[in-house]
Amino acid sequence: MEAQSYKLLDGKAVSAQMKKEMAEEVVRIKAAGGKIPHLAAILVGHDGGSETYVANKVKTCNEIGFKSTLIRYENDVTEEELLGKVDELNRDDDVDGFIVQLPLPKHIHEQKIIEAIDYHKDVDGFHPINVGRMSIGLPCFVSATPAGILELLRRYQIPTRGKHCVVLGRSNIVGKPMATLMLQKAYPGDCTVTVCHSRSENLKEMCLSADIIIVALGVPEFLRGNMVKEGAVVIDVGTTRVPSTLTKSGFKLTGDVKFDEVAPKCSYISPVPGGIGPMTIVSLMRNTLLAGKKAIYD
Amino acid sequence: MEAQSYKLLDGKAVSAQMKKEMAEEVVRIKAAGGKIPHLAAILVGHDGGSETYVANKVKTCNEIGFKSTLIRYENDVTEEELLGKVDELNRDDDVDGFIVQLPLPKHIHEQKIIEAIDYHKDVDGFHPINVGRMSIGLPCFVSATPAGILELLRRYQIPTRGKHCVVLGRSNIVGKPMATLMLQKAYPGDCTVTVCHSRSENLKEMCLSADIIIVALGVPEFLRGNMVKEGAVVIDVGTTRVPSTLTKSGFKLTGDVKFDEVAPKCSYISPVPGGIGPMTIVSLMRNTLLAGKKAIYD
Repeated sequence: MEAQSYKLLDGKAVSAQMKKEMAEEVVRIKAAGGKIPHLAAILVGHDGGSETYVANKVKTCNEIGFKSTLIRYENDVTEEELLGKVDELNRDDDVDGFIVQLPLPKHIHEQKIIEAIDYHKDVDGFHPINVGRMSIGLPCFVSATPAGILELLRRYQIPTRGKHCVVLGRSNIVGKPMATLMLQKAYPGDCTVTVCHSRSENLKEMCLSADIIIVALGVPEFLRGNMVKEGAVVIDVGTTRVPSTLTKSGFKLTGDVKFDEVAPKCSYISPVPGGIGPMTIVSLMRNTLLAGKKAIYD
Repeated sequence: MEAQSYKLLDGKAVSAQMKKEMAEEVVRIKAAGGKIPHLAAILVGHDGGSETYVANKVKTCNEIGFKSTLIRYENDVTEEELLGKVDELNRDDDVDGFIVQLPLPKHIHEQKIIEAIDYHKDVDGFHPINVGRMSIGLPCFVSATPAGILELLRRYQIPTRGKHCVVLGRSNIVGKPMATLMLQKAYPGDCTVTVCHSRSENLKEMCLSADIIIVALGVPEFLRGNMVKEGAVVIDVGTTRVPSTLTKSGFKLTGDVKFDEVAPKCSYISPVPGGIGPMTIVSLMRNTLLAGKKAIYD
């Protein structure tokens, strides 16, 4: 049997370390008589995924000593009510940052809600001002998943300058911002960046030439072993809930990478679960901390 | 002698056609008792390039029947004065859109001026809100050079879906927005997009695999014949002023493409001058027309 040659990008361990660092900072802030960071979350309805995500966010706040507020609405909440609550949170000086868990029911104009959030408190980084500032390279709230991926690359000191980074997927919350960030004159960054998607004619060849592959398609086990060159770094952003009889919940989280085929070719690879998922939550916490400290905006 | 095999992407001809279309629309607006589109421009100092660009913008306004206002300052204008004028133009109901010609003198914080412009009147599309909305895929003012390139591809019906588009350069005004636009689920767009820049290790190979190359590096004659595959579409965004004894002005505009080497390999290629330059100005006019009609924002 061959020895395992790849290293795991252990998002669980890194996020635990980051939580520890933030908890220590909260203790220091408290000791200095400062304000405890406060994250609020609006959750509409009872979607299983959304329930889990929001519960994890609240739990993580508790773990690191942030204040958190969960505001729940049923699926029949009106857009007006929701906008009213957003406005209230915008004006609440105690709330440093807040999120509206997506997706929202069809009768609510999601983009309208996002744009109603004061961008100074937009710790999800979805407001057009934060998206634009990120693209230009100005201080801003970077949305949590891309921020988490950057942090993971940074903590493992993965070389990026001049490398070819292929991003699979062009979503507004992962693919596009990830491409923009890996392109910036910064570390991590300074890559040649290629974005592929469902319409790409040459996706496999692109992947084969990549030093770093970030897969965010939401297609379970899309990336196969024959699409990856030796020594590549692979980041798996996929988290599809696939039915399973082996778990209590009745499903298991499945990534976009066929791990057993791809991992042996990699220098580094992030697993699912325990890779980008925990990094995402902890990055939202980091944004909240930055909001509390007024480190991005005055 | 071989027959010329490539077709010119004739920005001069297309922009003339677009000016004609817009002039006709202005006549119709006038006849219906509507408001004539009004573009204002702020010019600081006497930089030769800036003088030429602004003069061309004013001249083009005149040609198509727009109202234009040119506001000039000397190089010693204060940031405060400039911000005051921006505020005045923001509040002037007769001004549909305005631009501040860049670059500005060093003592003025350029980004601060850009962000002071009401994004509803930001026909240059440089405000973070317009940049962010473009990235997300929402209605917005797309900055003039990328908008001009898209329009040229559209008018020549260049196929883009699934093609590999390589963008050389990652500037905020061309490279980054161009990459974002060529990626969108739209026509022109839906490309696999690669962005290369000064740090890219594999720039030549990338170019050789490209169906469409957009060169915006500002390095005269950077793209050589041996970097382009047969049948490629090449867009030259470079406009460096190179000293010349052959012209009255003492310089000539030089593109980023070594035209005599590259053109014979292309299916389509845009020349310099007469390619993207005139498309840029006419795209600014189009944004002004859209602003006047409140077609993007109410």
